[in-house]
Amino acid sequence: MTLPRYAYLGPSGTFTEAALRAMVDVDEVEMVPAIDVLSALASVRAGDVDFAVVAIENTVEGGVTATLDTLATGAPLVILGEVVLPVSFELVARPGTTVGSIGAVAAHSHGLAQCRRWLAEHVPGAVQVAATSNAAAAGELAEGVAGFDAALAPPGLGARLGLEVLAAGVADNPHSATRFVKVGRPTAVPHATGADKTTLVVHLPDDRAGALLAMLEQFAARGVNLSRIESRPRSDRPGEYSFSVDALGHIDEPRVAEALVGLKRTNPVVVFLGSYPAASGYPTPVTPGTSEEEFAEARTWVQGLRSGRH
Amino acid sequence: MTLPRYAYLGPSGTFTEAALRAMVDVDEVEMVPAIDVLSALASVRAGDVDFAVVAIENTVEGGVTATLDTLATGAPLVILGEVVLPVSFELVARPGTTVGSIGAVAAHSHGLAQCRRWLAEHVPGAVQVAATSNAAAAGELAEGVAGFDAALAPPGLGARLGLEVLAAGVADNPHSATRFVKVGRPTAVPHATGADKTTLVVHLPDDRAGALLAMLEQFAARGVNLSRIESRPRSDRPGEYSFSVDALGHIDEPRVAEALVGLKRTNPVVVFLGSYPAASGYPTPVTPGTSEEEFAEARTWVQGLRSGRH
Amino acid sequence: MTLPRYAYLGPSGTFTEAALRAMVDVDEVEMVPAIDVLSALASVRAGDVDFAVVAIENTVEGGVTATLDTLATGAPLVILGEVVLPVSFELVARPGTTVGSIGAVAAHSHGLAQCRRWLAEHVPGAVQVAATSNAAAAGELAEGVAGFDAALAPPGLGARLGLEVLAAGVADNPHSATRFVKVGRPTAVPHATGADKTTLVVHLPDDRAGALLAMLEQFAARGVNLSRIESRPRSDRPGEYSFSVDALGHIDEPRVAEALVGLKRTNPVVVFLGSYPAASGYPTPVTPGTSEEEFAEARTWVQGLRSGRH
Amino acid sequence: MTLPRYAYLGPSGTFTEAALRAMVDVDEVEMVPAIDVLSALASVRAGDVDFAVVAIENTVEGGVTATLDTLATGAPLVILGEVVLPVSFELVARPGTTVGSIGAVAAHSHGLAQCRRWLAEHVPGAVQVAATSNAAAAGELAEGVAGFDAALAPPGLGARLGLEVLAAGVADNPHSATRFVKVGRPTAVPHATGADKTTLVVHLPDDRAGALLAMLEQFAARGVNLSRIESRPRSDRPGEYSFSVDALGHIDEPRVAEALVGLKRTNPVVVFLGSYPAASGYPTPVTPGTSEEEFAEARTWVQGLRSGRH
Repeated sequence: MTLPRYAYLGPSGTFTEAALRAMVDVDEVEMVPAIDVLSALASVRAGDVDFAVVAIENTVEGGVTATLDTLATGAPLVILGEVVLPVSFELVARPGTTVGSIGAVAAHSHGLAQCRRWLAEHVPGAVQVAATSNAAAAGELAEGVAGFDAALAPPGLGARLGLEVLAAGVADNPHSATRFVKVGRPTAVPHATGADKTTLVVHLPDDRAGALLAMLEQFAARGVNLSRIESRPRSDRPGEYSFSVDALGHIDEPRVAEALVGLKRTNPVVVFLGSYPAASGYPTPVTPGTSEEEFAEARTWVQGLRSGRH
Repeated sequence: MTLPRYAYLGPSGTFTEAALRAMVDVDEVEMVPAIDVLSALASVRAGDVDFAVVAIENTVEGGVTATLDTLATGAPLVILGEVVLPVSFELVARPGTTVGSIGAVAAHSHGLAQCRRWLAEHVPGAVQVAATSNAAAAGELAEGVAGFDAALAPPGLGARLGLEVLAAGVADNPHSATRFVKVGRPTAVPHATGADKTTLVVHLPDDRAGALLAMLEQFAARGVNLSRIESRPRSDRPGEYSFSVDALGHIDEPRVAEALVGLKRTNPVVVFLGSYPAASGYPTPVTPGTSEEEFAEARTWVQGLRSGRH
Repeated sequence: MTLPRYAYLGPSGTFTEAALRAMVDVDEVEMVPAIDVLSALASVRAGDVDFAVVAIENTVEGGVTATLDTLATGAPLVILGEVVLPVSFELVARPGTTVGSIGAVAAHSHGLAQCRRWLAEHVPGAVQVAATSNAAAAGELAEGVAGFDAALAPPGLGARLGLEVLAAGVADNPHSATRFVKVGRPTAVPHATGADKTTLVVHLPDDRAGALLAMLEQFAARGVNLSRIESRPRSDRPGEYSFSVDALGHIDEPRVAEALVGLKRTNPVVVFLGSYPAASGYPTPVTPGTSEEEFAEARTWVQGLRSGRH
Repeated sequence: MTLPRYAYLGPSGTFTEAALRAMVDVDEVEMVPAIDVLSALASVRAGDVDFAVVAIENTVEGGVTATLDTLATGAPLVILGEVVLPVSFELVARPGTTVGSIGAVAAHSHGLAQCRRWLAEHVPGAVQVAATSNAAAAGELAEGVAGFDAALAPPGLGARLGLEVLAAGVADNPHSATRFVKVGRPTAVPHATGADKTTLVVHLPDDRAGALLAMLEQFAARGVNLSRIESRPRSDRPGEYSFSVDALGHIDEPRVAEALVGLKRTNPVVVFLGSYPAASGYPTPVTPGTSEEEFAEARTWVQGLRSGRH
């Protein structure tokens, strides 16, 4: 039997790999490391893999804008699920190393930046060494070829490499988190769970004041909340913008479907990037007048009016 | 064969009768004068007549708020058509009378008010006599029992009574006009003509700032224009208001149907008072993205997305 | 000493006279009856009187649209106060008359319409006679020249004429009320009381969808509520509309002043018709972020930012 | 004389350094490399440097969210200017190297990602080596200690290091660009130029539907356009969002000042991050009714109304 193939930002040991592990049973999939987000998504489009897992928000590994922009253009892709991981490192070293003996610590520069205050407090004298990736730093330690004594590594990587975890939960901002999504080629949308997100890209009709407001009114008129909105400069039309948004709800819900109909009618480009279970699991807040039943009742009422039933 | 019965604000000779004559072939209907708008509408509700013709906007005969409020409450009624008549009188008198010999001129006080400047200019010395109705004044002239020499009468009445028309098109404001509607019991809505109006009454969810704005956004999100809006104090809840609106378009058009669905979902009371041909005959302006085809295309698009067709 | 002169819709005995009496001490003013609303307002403009009291909403005496339209155009006038009176009649007759003996009852046709159900219940057999005005009917009774036995009269008129009041509080709808305003030539605006209204007329920039919404957003952005809105066909440009609105609040309050600035900037015509104490006396609801103090603080903050104080 | 000190993301040779060079005459400033964006901004707050230049949008060097989040919290900082640089590399090597002889090419992984297609086409057989930074790769080449033959470097760096530029304008997407800002401690705002931006962070009052819409209406009601909007998860309140926006215009313009007053009144937190000349130099579009003169006229009008001048 062929296992489903998942591309992810490699090498082994990245946060993206951790996200993939959080999403699937690794024994049931084939993991395919990719050199960057573009390659990962391209391999889905090409059919070389079935899915990709990529960071989409607030990452320490870069690539978020690449993810947004690559999803927004080209052959259709859809988001099938998401996971949110805290940005938290483990301080790892070869067995026998103590924190007090660390003279140099390595990580990708983004990782060092996320842990600067922690390092200043806990290993104050240590030199900080920028590595090409967090995984590379840990790997060199494991292989015994490192020019430093310890590394900051994504959770779990040290243990897999036979390193000792000297500290866990290392992060300057304990609330910092990264959001990853599972992306595939278009297929029937996953079932609504009652706690879903729908991701869209919208090009506004033109640059006039009020076009953004009108776009948001299409959501508001159906009581649909947004959990994310980002303007993105359009590479094809310098000076113009597209909007990447996450709406709370599922395309199978009439609230969301009607908002989509409204957006489609009134904007030159609307790209549907999927409806999928929200990582939070919190049920979508449904304001009065926007439930499936209320939509159905209102439609029945209008149908009745047309034939004289009031 | 039984002729359809039409109630109207009588007696014979009112502007409302002129509106009725403008709407139907009087040989094909039975005309039933009513003492006021409430009576006319009550007789439709009771089934005593089939239809009523009543003033709904800007009348010189009063009753507009009575029309709005009576339509808004009680057993359902619907508007089936409208006609707009200029507010313009004829100066009528017994044959042989000349303008120069008029010592007193009569009309309902509203009629006198509409023609004050004209009278001051053309029959400057004449005493103005308030009558119980314009038709009553003309009737007394015709019967030879009047204590005045001339009357202001709705167009056509003088001729029907055998009076002479000394001046036509009498009005201080040549643009003044009254709008009348034909009202019946609910039935299948008249076919859309492409130049239609839909009349509604809406109670807002509560008195909060923004509720009116949210109501109008339900129209705006579907590109539906309003041609009339009036707040009306609610007799059942003093201090609160309902809104009487005319929207351009027909309930069979998806723009209007969707706006109705949205209003119904988000407001405690929505009364549908009919979709009917606009008197102006001007085609409803359809902004880009709100045509029937664009709605259909957008719905097809959403349907496709659900099964993976992008 | 010269008393201030007040025009009102006469003759003596109208609801408008009752409104005037509710507003002023009649011993301190000179009351000048006018034949209609246009005449009353014209005499203010001409300086023949100091003030006029006219119905502006929901009247049984007609003239509301005349009031709105006459205020909206021509030499500036402002509203200086308002009063709301219940629409309620007294059944009056010559002394000695009993309800059971009434064979015919008279009133203006609007008055009869307001009391139809009451009459049907309490004087079921009586013939209803339309008079040229309620006051005229009562006057004929008092003079002993009436062809009917009783009349519906505004409260207080019967007593002044020496008639007997057979029933008070006569009205089909006990919540029905009429709103009257005191109008004068522009002067310094009356002081804010905390429970005020501001009346405006606005012409929208053009007939596009969204212009009405944009107008209301000028109010909403400052948290200003409307208590009345009415579209009025413009006599100078057929097919176009102006909007007559009452906003809660006073021009001396920054919320209202800023909304006025916004309206003035973005609409071709804005007519200010006055800020004046609301008849209800209910304090204007002030949503968070729209109090005078919050405006002042926000302005101070912006001023500080400009010079680097954060 | 002391030169102004500028922190930037070092080491020498980064795109951020190129941005700094594009903003100032390097002979007139002291350039202080920082290890990351947080350090650069922290050194401004601490007074160790006068200014920092940091990427704020669409960077290939990471740190954008760090920039947004660090500016939004902590001691006040303001943006004083911006520059937009194309994302474009030079292929550099030791003198004598030819494109055909390149066996391995190095760059930071983000740089490799931006040039993947170009490399596949022009140096198809070359191994791609991830370096800790673009500058580090070029530096190793210059020092003769590199384990690769060529590097992708920001424009100008190769020449400064004595390397040969084998190709310029290397980029897969010719429209890709990064936006950098100059940040300092609060001071008097730079003069308005007529082509300015104002950057803000806003926390909405709560998570209700419509709060985002209401925030945008504060801009729309004054005709202020946004050129960027991004929701940012709030680290202090998980599950809630703040909004980072760039508005077109300057705080000294009444349009923008009034929008700020409105935002301040109606949202719990508004952080002003500066008004500064827009890199584009395009004059701010000013919709009718929102010019400084129209604001002044409308204010004068309101002032006049208060004292009876209409």
